[in-house]
Amino acid sequence: MKRARAQLQAVPFEEAQRIFFARLAAFFHAREEEIKTPEAVGRVTSRPVSAARDLPHYASAAMDGIAVKAERTRSADPHHPERLLRGRDFEYVDTGDPIPDPYDAVIKIEDVHELDADTLSIAQPVRAGKHIRAVGEDFAQGAQVVPKDFLLTPEAVAALLGTGNLTVWVKCRPRAIFIPTGSELIPPDQKPARGQIVETNSHIVKGYVERWGASVAIHPIVPNDFACVRRAVQEACAEHDLILIGAGTSKGRGDWVSEVVRELGEVLVHGVAYHPGHPVLLGVIESKPVIGLPGYPVATWLALHIFVRPLVERYYFGRARELLKIQAKLTKPIQSVRGFREFVRARLERAADGSYLVHPLQGGASKLSTLVGADGWIEVPEDVEHYEQGALVETTLVD
Amino acid sequence: MKRARAQLQAVPFEEAQRIFFARLAAFFHAREEEIKTPEAVGRVTSRPVSAARDLPHYASAAMDGIAVKAERTRSADPHHPERLLRGRDFEYVDTGDPIPDPYDAVIKIEDVHELDADTLSIAQPVRAGKHIRAVGEDFAQGAQVVPKDFLLTPEAVAALLGTGNLTVWVKCRPRAIFIPTGSELIPPDQKPARGQIVETNSHIVKGYVERWGASVAIHPIVPNDFACVRRAVQEACAEHDLILIGAGTSKGRGDWVSEVVRELGEVLVHGVAYHPGHPVLLGVIESKPVIGLPGYPVATWLALHIFVRPLVERYYFGRARELLKIQAKLTKPIQSVRGFREFVRARLERAADGSYLVHPLQGGASKLSTLVGADGWIEVPEDVEHYEQGALVETTLVD
Repeated sequence: MKRARAQLQAVPFEEAQRIFFARLAAFFHAREEEIKTPEAVGRVTSRPVSAARDLPHYASAAMDGIAVKAERTRSADPHHPERLLRGRDFEYVDTGDPIPDPYDAVIKIEDVHELDADTLSIAQPVRAGKHIRAVGEDFAQGAQVVPKDFLLTPEAVAALLGTGNLTVWVKCRPRAIFIPTGSELIPPDQKPARGQIVETNSHIVKGYVERWGASVAIHPIVPNDFACVRRAVQEACAEHDLILIGAGTSKGRGDWVSEVVRELGEVLVHGVAYHPGHPVLLGVIESKPVIGLPGYPVATWLALHIFVRPLVERYYFGRARELLKIQAKLTKPIQSVRGFREFVRARLERAADGSYLVHPLQGGASKLSTLVGADGWIEVPEDVEHYEQGALVETTLVD
Repeated sequence: MKRARAQLQAVPFEEAQRIFFARLAAFFHAREEEIKTPEAVGRVTSRPVSAARDLPHYASAAMDGIAVKAERTRSADPHHPERLLRGRDFEYVDTGDPIPDPYDAVIKIEDVHELDADTLSIAQPVRAGKHIRAVGEDFAQGAQVVPKDFLLTPEAVAALLGTGNLTVWVKCRPRAIFIPTGSELIPPDQKPARGQIVETNSHIVKGYVERWGASVAIHPIVPNDFACVRRAVQEACAEHDLILIGAGTSKGRGDWVSEVVRELGEVLVHGVAYHPGHPVLLGVIESKPVIGLPGYPVATWLALHIFVRPLVERYYFGRARELLKIQAKLTKPIQSVRGFREFVRARLERAADGSYLVHPLQGGASKLSTLVGADGWIEVPEDVEHYEQGALVETTLVD
């Protein structure tokens, strides 16, 4: 038991992701549901959506002015202004008004000279269609409004409603559950005695995984006991699509999680060559992804971002969307371990000239204080041991 | 009425913001409320918060190994390993375990050689404190966990709970209301006749303004009638902190909004020198900010981002946080009007070499289709009329 860590694998990061994701075809096959469009901001379409009607659905004035027949204005010029009679040659229109028959163009109010209440003159011809919002010019009936796998923004919801789509088919949220394990853990509302630790990782899990679009249930704390962990994981699999187990930091519990996963399903990877978070466990039970999250807060936070986020993104979009990366100048050197990928927490600062500085935040993986205020991380590849102060590095921004 | 637009001001963008914000001291003075910490993700602190207890609150092992007295290991070296007896010289500990008295250092399990169940040897000395998580090393009791005006992330909530802060004082959400005006407007669940327009801007307003941290009420559609608009605005002021009026696009309604605001309060700016959205109205009623949003969807979207977002940010953070800007190469030229600031919708694309391309999305302010898929905008200053294809420009990302 004492030497559990020594048996860990050190699977290269990208290979670990590949091994894991290759086994999750069933998870990535999203279920869909039809919901009311006004409630769909932040949801992801499961089908392309096309316009149920034209937008706009009638020809309308794009400017305040007069509706005319373009033909009637053909010979107007500054030396020979054309006189137009209301009711026969033109009608006043305001922006958004339907274009009355038989007119086919709009002249801006600034470009007409009023002679009396019913007569005016123009000094320029106008082409047919000018300053008219044509039927379907925003979306023609049947045209695609949003594709499949599209994250619905507020403006997309407006476009769907404007084209007559009152409901929309979206992917069901994956149902995640987090199971914190550890006999030393207590809920935050209890006062910890010596040897007891307040369980706070569940708040990091819930905060991020919900933000990425999954629902997150939090299991009560499970004591450090094989049968209890086994029962909790087995029950979780019945109701959830994605099982996250808080492995804790002591007493070889990581090993129990791996035994439980091995007994109920399959351990794919136990130990990935990166820091902080080497002991992460990736497995499947009944085709469902199971992740054993290392217990230190920074390791939990990082494993969520590098394993759970890509997994939820693939569920929704078929691929993990790239996080935004910013080129920035390093304010302190970074050391790393050859053969391991190092993820260094980092805080960005915009310099006066518009370029970015990046401050690496060092300190143990146990320190929440280094996470509070981090904007993201610097990734040090496996074959690099050192970045010098002043080096230009990419900083990945946490969303 | 026909020439209402001709009377618009063209106040420079930054001056308009300055005039408006200078009158909003009462709005920017946030009320606060005490809420449960687990529900505080996304809220903003109204006071600094300090640790109610040390984290960790007891000295613990940072590694699996043995707890020793550093003094006892002083003379160990590879040629003269030191023999240690369990119970007298050392005790086994796992990560997270309290350090038993009287020990003051931990040696990693990998660095000890077991001789029998109770005896082992070590080949290196260890300094006091090594591999021990000291009391308060993450947060010492009384130390600041988060400052005032801090947007609470999941990890900040974990840090608050870990330091014994079960509740937290946060700024109340500002209560915004959006009043769509226009007799031609109908709700999305009705089938529009010729001349009727489906009201969809409320979904853009709600989606973004809630994302920025305000609550948003949507007023029923108000017909194009002075008394109705006046009553709606007056009632809205009684219950809300921030009044957003959908000005519509036709029939000189913009004028009615300005008359209403003038009668109930004060119009500060009516007409700002930018596109698209020139007719925006900025005013105050009973010290509350009132914004008349131009009715075209793109103009509404933009006015929200450049007036409402900075306003909510100032409420929370004392200043508007800078949106992220990306240097990118323009794929098409942009034309602009001298004296006006042009905000051009834009879509970013990452090139194979890691640099960014930016595609300007042109088309009328009425077109929702140009918003769907925009990542942000390119800002063309007042004194620039033209950006050439291939120019490096800054793209502001919508969050």
